[in-house]
Amino acid sequence: MSIDRYSIEQAHERIKPYIHRTPVLTSKSINEATGCHVYLKCENFQKVGAFKARGAMNAALSLDAEDRAKGLATHSSGNHAQALARAAKILGTQAYIVMPHTAPEIKKRGVRGYSGEIFECEPTLQARETTLAEVIKKTGAIEIHPFNNYDVIEGQATAAKELFADVRELDAILAPVGGGGLLSGTALAAKYFSPETKVIAAEPAGSDDTYRSLKSGKLEPAQSQTIADGLLTTVGDKTFPIIQKHVSEVITVTDDEIIAAMRLVWERVKIIIEPSCAVPVAALIKEKARFHDQRVGIILSGGNVDLEKVLALLTR
Amino acid sequence: MSIDRYSIEQAHERIKPYIHRTPVLTSKSINEATGCHVYLKCENFQKVGAFKARGAMNAALSLDAEDRAKGLATHSSGNHAQALARAAKILGTQAYIVMPHTAPEIKKRGVRGYSGEIFECEPTLQARETTLAEVIKKTGAIEIHPFNNYDVIEGQATAAKELFADVRELDAILAPVGGGGLLSGTALAAKYFSPETKVIAAEPAGSDDTYRSLKSGKLEPAQSQTIADGLLTTVGDKTFPIIQKHVSEVITVTDDEIIAAMRLVWERVKIIIEPSCAVPVAALIKEKARFHDQRVGIILSGGNVDLEKVLALLTR
Repeated sequence: MSIDRYSIEQAHERIKPYIHRTPVLTSKSINEATGCHVYLKCENFQKVGAFKARGAMNAALSLDAEDRAKGLATHSSGNHAQALARAAKILGTQAYIVMPHTAPEIKKRGVRGYSGEIFECEPTLQARETTLAEVIKKTGAIEIHPFNNYDVIEGQATAAKELFADVRELDAILAPVGGGGLLSGTALAAKYFSPETKVIAAEPAGSDDTYRSLKSGKLEPAQSQTIADGLLTTVGDKTFPIIQKHVSEVITVTDDEIIAAMRLVWERVKIIIEPSCAVPVAALIKEKARFHDQRVGIILSGGNVDLEKVLALLTR
Repeated sequence: MSIDRYSIEQAHERIKPYIHRTPVLTSKSINEATGCHVYLKCENFQKVGAFKARGAMNAALSLDAEDRAKGLATHSSGNHAQALARAAKILGTQAYIVMPHTAPEIKKRGVRGYSGEIFECEPTLQARETTLAEVIKKTGAIEIHPFNNYDVIEGQATAAKELFADVRELDAILAPVGGGGLLSGTALAAKYFSPETKVIAAEPAGSDDTYRSLKSGKLEPAQSQTIADGLLTTVGDKTFPIIQKHVSEVITVTDDEIIAAMRLVWERVKIIIEPSCAVPVAALIKEKARFHDQRVGIILSGGNVDLEKVLALLTR
């Protein structure tokens, strides 16, 4: 499978009835803090509160009817779980979600709210994969991986596509990177819809596998110490080659920088973003000298936060 | 002075270059929680983070050049202080703001950020009024009262006017009431631009002077125990008659109900609102049976929160 301009356009048409066209916000305070002209693509206002609604819906819609009827399965403790459960419900099929038993109750409620069936497991990658394999064996469901799936990548590309349509002549676009679904989609959208725009990744220093993988030229294992809990995963064998080819660089930021950026957005833009979502904002502030007076797009990836946890971060 | 359709239209034209036309958001979660169709007019995204930017700017622009050059003065510990300082700065005059020395540092920084001059006083109404009188005597500045001023009321009316233009056939519109500037403006906007829409006030039970004043037919003194700190003031002799004439009723809500509503909006709409701003949302949830399936507008008045303080509320 190859992703091109046409396939992204098709994906966009396919998912449009089921997603929000999210607004682009600008903020004088953010422009002052960064020294450039910032355009915030607000996927925190997206269905299920994150861009993940796009990729999951595109993957579900791209299955033929027979496969789709078998049900959709994934392991995820985060936004993809809700996004897939929602897609399944809308399309009249079943979602089977493997989650570590340590996942926050609010995430489980979100999945159950869309009638998704949850299978709990130990909080290790191995347990998640084993449990998912068992669930698939038992149910015959189709796996929809959170990021290492071309249909998912294509769906995530539509966020940047919308931003490029709304804001012309961006000098750069920043997206966070965890597994790389959003980043590789953003990079492909730039290639086909705004080729002059540089694509820059933002990554927590405590989980900088993409930064290290790009340096070494091969997939490096993840560390896992950051408050940006949506970005703990490692890029996959489908996302990494796209990133290698189309992403200019990775800026890494510390947890303190992430918290300061999140606080700035909450207080000055008056919108709720999750820690992972603040990572590119932090990157822009950190490297502001380089972006002076440029037009910079940022994909604000999501707004699903555990308020107690986040407020504890803000006040620590 | 009388406020009519034409004067509100004029005020709107006057302030348009200086304010945001704020978006109207809808949310499936909020509709589910309230059982009706809710349209949120997001004045939390307004300049200075609150509708107060409208009234202060209209009052400042309505002065003749000679008076305006004398400077603008007020006592306020809240959003009006910043709004007036901003208006003064934009119009090239000076703002003199009397604030209790206990006012949060962030509010003082906001005023100073617009080059406003702060005069600190004891945190009592009497001290505030005495200090303001001294400042006016010394500087010759013109007082712009936070709400008991027809130009201010007219400016605040423009928020509802915009909502009525964007969303037709609202059955009801809810606004919070403190001093009554926003509420009386909203009531007049409904009268002239959407006469079929019922205007309902929402007030903290711990500061229910409007509720009691409407019952007794005269201005009742305020109590002052609520976390909705923007609504501690009492309606004035200019706002109360408008409210008496044009507001159908006042729904009062407890602090617990306010906190639950604020949390709902933060978590599900992904926007930051201040406790005062959550009061009408709480009122709608409390009285949901009555509004079943109706089309209801809510003025979300502002988003200026002290994050630390809100943390304490959400986790108490």
